[in-house]
Amino acid sequence: MIDINKQIESLGFETREPRGLYEPIAYALSTGGKRLRPTLAIVAAESVHNGGLINGDAIEQVYPAALALEVFHNFTLLHDDLMDKASLRRGKETVHVRWNANTAILSGDQMLIEAYKLLAQVPANKLPQVLNWFNEMASKVCEGQQYDIDFEHMSQVSIDDYLKMIEYKTSVLLAYAMQIGGYIAGATPAQQEALYQYGLHIGMAFQIQDDILDVYGDPNTFGKVIGGDICSNKKTILLITALETADPESKAELLQWIMTTERNEEKIAAVTAIYDRLGVREACDAIMEEHTSRALLQLDKLPQNDATESLRELAERLATRKS
Amino acid sequence: MIDINKQIESLGFETREPRGLYEPIAYALSTGGKRLRPTLAIVAAESVHNGGLINGDAIEQVYPAALALEVFHNFTLLHDDLMDKASLRRGKETVHVRWNANTAILSGDQMLIEAYKLLAQVPANKLPQVLNWFNEMASKVCEGQQYDIDFEHMSQVSIDDYLKMIEYKTSVLLAYAMQIGGYIAGATPAQQEALYQYGLHIGMAFQIQDDILDVYGDPNTFGKVIGGDICSNKKTILLITALETADPESKAELLQWIMTTERNEEKIAAVTAIYDRLGVREACDAIMEEHTSRALLQLDKLPQNDATESLRELAERLATRKS
Repeated sequence: MIDINKQIESLGFETREPRGLYEPIAYALSTGGKRLRPTLAIVAAESVHNGGLINGDAIEQVYPAALALEVFHNFTLLHDDLMDKASLRRGKETVHVRWNANTAILSGDQMLIEAYKLLAQVPANKLPQVLNWFNEMASKVCEGQQYDIDFEHMSQVSIDDYLKMIEYKTSVLLAYAMQIGGYIAGATPAQQEALYQYGLHIGMAFQIQDDILDVYGDPNTFGKVIGGDICSNKKTILLITALETADPESKAELLQWIMTTERNEEKIAAVTAIYDRLGVREACDAIMEEHTSRALLQLDKLPQNDATESLRELAERLATRKS
Repeated sequence: MIDINKQIESLGFETREPRGLYEPIAYALSTGGKRLRPTLAIVAAESVHNGGLINGDAIEQVYPAALALEVFHNFTLLHDDLMDKASLRRGKETVHVRWNANTAILSGDQMLIEAYKLLAQVPANKLPQVLNWFNEMASKVCEGQQYDIDFEHMSQVSIDDYLKMIEYKTSVLLAYAMQIGGYIAGATPAQQEALYQYGLHIGMAFQIQDDILDVYGDPNTFGKVIGGDICSNKKTILLITALETADPESKAELLQWIMTTERNEEKIAAVTAIYDRLGVREACDAIMEEHTSRALLQLDKLPQNDATESLRELAERLATRKS
């Protein structure tokens, strides 16, 4: 497997002029993260390319697109953090805090352009299709972010609305990472579809698990404070499920707590107790597991090799993760 | 000539969901403007395509790229207005005023993606080259904006620094509009270069003229308040030229006025008098005319037809414009 951090370093943002534009980009890309998207693109390519982990030419042709996906993802984090006024990302100051809002806007814009520069390195015969998919994905991510913003001001959000939002905001990027990686490496249309669906469903499972862990995670291993979503009344799949399935009495109690903006400890305990009583966790676990199962099913449609095996392990790990 | 406003309407931003994302885009694109960039791309195509104004297939192939350039340009205005805290654009409220900063960020991002969606419609055999040029252009525009921001905090800016900044921020977009339009319509490499240089030099002339008109424009026809750049100490080519060429006494007087943040009427009159005494206007006129001449020279390298003639008229009109 290539060293993605090294590939990112080789893009040279550390030295490019003007520094005011490129230094924040180098910073935003150096804070690490799991590099999940480029990894997915490359493993997808390996899964369909001559049946295994191969370091041949075809796989190398996937690198620029894989990096484009990572740069794009970090662009969305940079602008989302500014919009959310988040001060930390992966334990480091966000760009708009370390520099300022204008720097976050302009360097973010340049990152989006850099993603397209990397994409332009896709082999010419595959570029039109990859560019179309990438554009489709990028639009969906923006639309998902808009739905997420809209939800804050909506009194009622259905589970379907919620699932569409996380599909757009999170899952399509993983889905297209798989599909693009496979396509460049020569996947058949049926394989491309299986790769897409795998990415989509692990994305859904990941995001639902994220909501569940925010309430039921182990405080010792979960990176964030437990109950943060409850305090901020975030319309997670847990809250939406609770509101949709609650008896009138539980619903009234829940709405009462939503209007309470203080006594956070007490609020977390009370809302969690309502969730427990309504079986919300089990309902959400079931939805998550359904997505994990659907992701795993896709793998049967692919060549069985080391790459496919690592995709199987990834799906299972995401579903049982504690942090 | 196609109706560019109609083409923009046909992109359907007026109805696309989520409205919170697409309504500001429809708004930003509906405020008009000269549509200079798509016009240049199309006229460039006409100038090299079978010798004249033709409504054939080849010209229609230029439309998506031409629109991409206009959408990109309006994306930069949207984000620049937010960064500059500008409240009006073409006489209408800016997006961040009518909605809010987050809307300006996210809808702006989506506009940039929409530009790439249009670009993806370029004929496949020409897409790799056009995408590379577009990316190169887009990066330069961001770099130019960064240099412009950097200049605010620099005590000394040379004329060369200034010319590079306006080349990046303004002129390369016009240059690539010409080159891309011509390339798609089948321009030879020599014609592509002539088209590029024409766009570059009219861009330079336009921007320099903008600085000159801010001081010497006719208040009755110039759209903005005369002397605005002087009041805000903007590092225009006039101020930079004055600082570079002034005798010690004039320079001291000029620096004294730069430190004066009140008595605007008096400041405008005094700084203009210094410019007059130093012959700043003549020096800047000469630089502008040099660029206009260079633009016009390029046209001799192109087929002589109605399109080339309209490019000649445009260059002359820009150089003698009063507003």
